[in-house]
Amino acid sequence: MSTTAYTDCIQACSACAIACESCAAACLREPHVEQMRTCIQLDLDCVDLCRLAERLMLRESALVDEICRLCALACQACAEECAKHAHDHCQQCAQACQRCVEACEAIGLAA
Amino acid sequence: MSTTAYTDCIQACSACAIACESCAAACLREPHVEQMRTCIQLDLDCVDLCRLAERLMLRESALVDEICRLCALACQACAEECAKHAHDHCQQCAQACQRCVEACEAIGLAA
Amino acid sequence: MSTTAYTDCIQACSACAIACESCAAACLREPHVEQMRTCIQLDLDCVDLCRLAERLMLRESALVDEICRLCALACQACAEECAKHAHDHCQQCAQACQRCVEACEAIGLAA
Amino acid sequence: MSTTAYTDCIQACSACAIACESCAAACLREPHVEQMRTCIQLDLDCVDLCRLAERLMLRESALVDEICRLCALACQACAEECAKHAHDHCQQCAQACQRCVEACEAIGLAA
Repeated sequence: MSTTAYTDCIQACSACAIACESCAAACLREPHVEQMRTCIQLDLDCVDLCRLAERLMLRESALVDEICRLCALACQACAEECAKHAHDHCQQCAQACQRCVEACEAIGLAA
Repeated sequence: MSTTAYTDCIQACSACAIACESCAAACLREPHVEQMRTCIQLDLDCVDLCRLAERLMLRESALVDEICRLCALACQACAEECAKHAHDHCQQCAQACQRCVEACEAIGLAA
Repeated sequence: MSTTAYTDCIQACSACAIACESCAAACLREPHVEQMRTCIQLDLDCVDLCRLAERLMLRESALVDEICRLCALACQACAEECAKHAHDHCQQCAQACQRCVEACEAIGLAA
Repeated sequence: MSTTAYTDCIQACSACAIACESCAAACLREPHVEQMRTCIQLDLDCVDLCRLAERLMLRESALVDEICRLCALACQACAEECAKHAHDHCQQCAQACQRCVEACEAIGLAA
């Protein structure tokens, strides 16, 4: 696949990384931060996986399919956790993660 | 400054990182790759600085002003080198870098 | 300067990044996580700056001096915060940060 | 598994990332850089996978096994390519990659 074929997924990963980074920072400032531990952990993993998936797609690396499958797992876990919390940043993050799951699965499972 | 104040610069850094990552990968595939060495080196530095600036802005880190000043230097160097090459990816990268210089300077020099 | 001249600083940055990453993860699991917010934030910044400094030294980038100066600031802030907490991971992190401040200043201020 | 169980693999990933980063930078400066394209591409992928594996192990992330399996693939590909080139940096990189394959497989396949 060419970079063009990855365009949607690159955009979804980029938006998801931004949402997760913002969510982690906002969670850390919440009054009940002790309830946000798992959310922060999953946000941080999700940022890193999305950034790497984005990077490997931009390079058209041979590892794109595998990283997209793994990125989908990270996004799925983060989406489920974020959906439990009413904070705007968590709800927005859950949506960005959900879109990224679909975009990554479209790459990873097509392989 | 709040994340909202950083919105333009976050977007410029993200676009610049994507352009530089693509440019580095494309340069590496050019027939005359020996003429693209400096371009690849500066692209790689620029990606890393843009990603870090983006990240620190999203976290509203205390180091935002300093990283934006440094990111502007990396983008400026990359813009000047890319502008010398006629390849589409270099010309597009030069433009993304130039916009990012302006966005980063608006943050870093306002401080 | 050659990579050889950077050897000590590369090692200090690597050790500091590992200590900060571990400290952030451990802080997030502490019973009184609400007291560790600043520590986690500074740990995350310090990891990112150390990793980038390490990377630019390995590449002998033209931005080494500037990134080392900025990395020293991140390490200094993290060292001061970690030193306030009695947890083993914070005390170890404070020491790794302090060593990294010295190594980075030896590069950044020599310039 | 605890971070202690990951100690060997964290060290192997760190050493491999440093070797690959150095190798990529050195390849880019070789007289026959056109023969080093694949080596540079695989080095860059390998750095990124090693850094992420290292990071997820330090955080004891739920994705450790998967990222270690993927990191082993990246290291294997890089080891095979680097072994073809007589440059010292390539030979050293091939060895660091080979050690990292073994350390990552010990984590990823034990799961």
